[in-house]
Amino acid sequence: MKIIFAINAGSSSLKISVYLAEDRNATPRQIANAQISGLTSQSTKLTYIRGNESIYKNHQVRAGSQDDAFDIILNSLVGDENLDEIGSKSDIAITCHRIVHGGKYESAQIITKDTYYHIQTLSDLAPLHNGAALGIVETCIRKLPDTTNIACFDTQFHMSLPPHVYTYPINQERAQKNGLRKYGFHGLSYSFITRSVAKFLQKDVSKLNIIALHLGSGASACAIKGGKSWDTSMGLTPLSGLPGATRSGSVDPSLVFHYASDVGKLSPTSTAKLHISKAEEILNKESGLSALAGTTDFAVIAGADRAEHPQSALAFDLFVDRVSAFIGSYYVSLEGRVDALVFAGGIGEKSSRFRSAVVSSTACLGFGISDSANDSISTEGSVVQDISSEDTRSKVLVCQTDEQIEMACMCASKNELWD
Amino acid sequence: MKIIFAINAGSSSLKISVYLAEDRNATPRQIANAQISGLTSQSTKLTYIRGNESIYKNHQVRAGSQDDAFDIILNSLVGDENLDEIGSKSDIAITCHRIVHGGKYESAQIITKDTYYHIQTLSDLAPLHNGAALGIVETCIRKLPDTTNIACFDTQFHMSLPPHVYTYPINQERAQKNGLRKYGFHGLSYSFITRSVAKFLQKDVSKLNIIALHLGSGASACAIKGGKSWDTSMGLTPLSGLPGATRSGSVDPSLVFHYASDVGKLSPTSTAKLHISKAEEILNKESGLSALAGTTDFAVIAGADRAEHPQSALAFDLFVDRVSAFIGSYYVSLEGRVDALVFAGGIGEKSSRFRSAVVSSTACLGFGISDSANDSISTEGSVVQDISSEDTRSKVLVCQTDEQIEMACMCASKNELWD
Repeated sequence: MKIIFAINAGSSSLKISVYLAEDRNATPRQIANAQISGLTSQSTKLTYIRGNESIYKNHQVRAGSQDDAFDIILNSLVGDENLDEIGSKSDIAITCHRIVHGGKYESAQIITKDTYYHIQTLSDLAPLHNGAALGIVETCIRKLPDTTNIACFDTQFHMSLPPHVYTYPINQERAQKNGLRKYGFHGLSYSFITRSVAKFLQKDVSKLNIIALHLGSGASACAIKGGKSWDTSMGLTPLSGLPGATRSGSVDPSLVFHYASDVGKLSPTSTAKLHISKAEEILNKESGLSALAGTTDFAVIAGADRAEHPQSALAFDLFVDRVSAFIGSYYVSLEGRVDALVFAGGIGEKSSRFRSAVVSSTACLGFGISDSANDSISTEGSVVQDISSEDTRSKVLVCQTDEQIEMACMCASKNELWD
Repeated sequence: MKIIFAINAGSSSLKISVYLAEDRNATPRQIANAQISGLTSQSTKLTYIRGNESIYKNHQVRAGSQDDAFDIILNSLVGDENLDEIGSKSDIAITCHRIVHGGKYESAQIITKDTYYHIQTLSDLAPLHNGAALGIVETCIRKLPDTTNIACFDTQFHMSLPPHVYTYPINQERAQKNGLRKYGFHGLSYSFITRSVAKFLQKDVSKLNIIALHLGSGASACAIKGGKSWDTSMGLTPLSGLPGATRSGSVDPSLVFHYASDVGKLSPTSTAKLHISKAEEILNKESGLSALAGTTDFAVIAGADRAEHPQSALAFDLFVDRVSAFIGSYYVSLEGRVDALVFAGGIGEKSSRFRSAVVSSTACLGFGISDSANDSISTEGSVVQDISSEDTRSKVLVCQTDEQIEMACMCASKNELWD
């Protein structure tokens, strides 16, 4: 029996889900979940759920850093007398960390000095993304010296991309030297989606072909062929492909040089370790759907009156267009053999209006939606819910994706941790 | 009756096609064609055809600049006693110029001081592309003072793109101010293709839906809906979308900042008028299929033995993949109502192996090819040739595109030139 912490550190939030793994063959069972949000704001809040019981909900706390947030969550868990499974810090066997950029790692890695150093060097490819997670790894090494740290990468699911997909047509010597290729992201989510949809369709994972959409504040699409990633919309970094809440997605690679002068210079937010150009900051942080519609809340964008809020209508139409384009291209790369189109992520799981618009715009590929099923999707419902119409050629599904349990499963299935 | 020169100035070549327009309703008829190539090399050559007769073929000449090349061609034409239609320079009524970037111009423009100045300011968006053409405009103004100069833009055909397609999800104030939107290019070619395919299919242009591919050393795709451009793969500049001979096409917009340091700095090839960043030069001039395969000759890439030349095989597969992706996405944006898939441009017209691979990879959309028709395409044949299989759902066509005649037609149909 092992206690596993699945840790997801964002730029202003820290989420720790606590699992109990009975043995190496059992699926870990969640026993608690704690989250601190608003770390960079005036209003920092703790939410803590034990089992199905809500202990704190948006409870105001004082935490100025990820380190503070970790302390608060750790003390809440260890100090909770009703959480029988954790008596002291030494009961925590494994902490697994969601790391955005894992380079060419094909599986989760036990964090040693070597892997830690390597992940740090990779972070130069994703300075805006790996930073917070690496900070928490350091914190765990310091505060939980008996615990094994494991890195789970958002890139590892995509290491199956074929060379003609992952290669950029640029100088190949430079590409090799600097590690310039398509990596793809949201891999923990796609891994979860693949397992869950195969189970739902009662299909062998190795025979599953799906087009999966992880649409949240970061958004991507993935063509999954025989259970493996065959193509995905993000690239060297999470910037390319679909627009996100504040990310431009793919734009003409020369655009940023016509956006402002000196975009190649380092942004003031760069540190000695992490180099961020102004251009990367503009395209990652100051663009996307919010630059069009003035809000990062997709529910507001999708719900706006088209005549009164033409910019929201534009953002909505643009996002439908870009998502539909990837569905068309992945339908082709899967040779039309698609078991299901799967919506996931905040927008994919919650916006029935968006799902309806996308399925309607890709109807020529044989996708059809049941309006009543689409409108009655519930976050309290099953992991995978079917919203297909009767005459659909491929299933249309909604999957409530869960990167935390995916990490816990990856760790629990690592043989070396049980020996 | 008017003599029209259609002028296409490349970075190392100058091509002038000479047409006779009987009246404003007649299609101009080509009476001569002259081309100088290798302008920046040791071996500068003139080819001159009068009617169907070859007068010079790769005749060595001395020309160090576009200006020299223009003189040589002009003297060849005016001095040719057998070219009855041109007795002196003043017989040349119209020179039309292919200008790559025309901003928001929706039609060909008579070049006045104002338009010339405006085209110059636009050139900052396409410093690598507008330069040579603007030089020849100046030359014509100087050397043919009685002639009307007309600018025909590669962008004008795409001014019908809808806002949700041409908008980039970036700060909209900056986008407005700096003119940052999708413009699209190869428009003269797509305009020709649209007219020619409508005629071939005996369909009203306003009801024609096609997916057109202009694949040459620059490559792009276009979704044409009701005879108008609905989406296209190039963007603010010709860099985005498909890879070209030396262009990367769409890559992660942050890639170039990880390619080399100081990529935001001006390239040494910049001039006082035209600013080119190192990044734009790397991605436009040092990338593309040639960076993968070591040659810009697609016939060599397509003909290479896959085992002996894995890098050529990779370039071929990558190009098939990227082209097929656009076909999939444009099939969706045309809602599956596609009259024809049309191949054009050097690669599109000449590489039967490439056409075969693309049609085969998009077979799930209902495209089918006749191997015998595909293998017997001839550049001596009709403008549009049908290579569809019997069971194809949409036609598969090859169109020998002709930007020169398209420019001549645009000019001949301008009423103000006949009044």
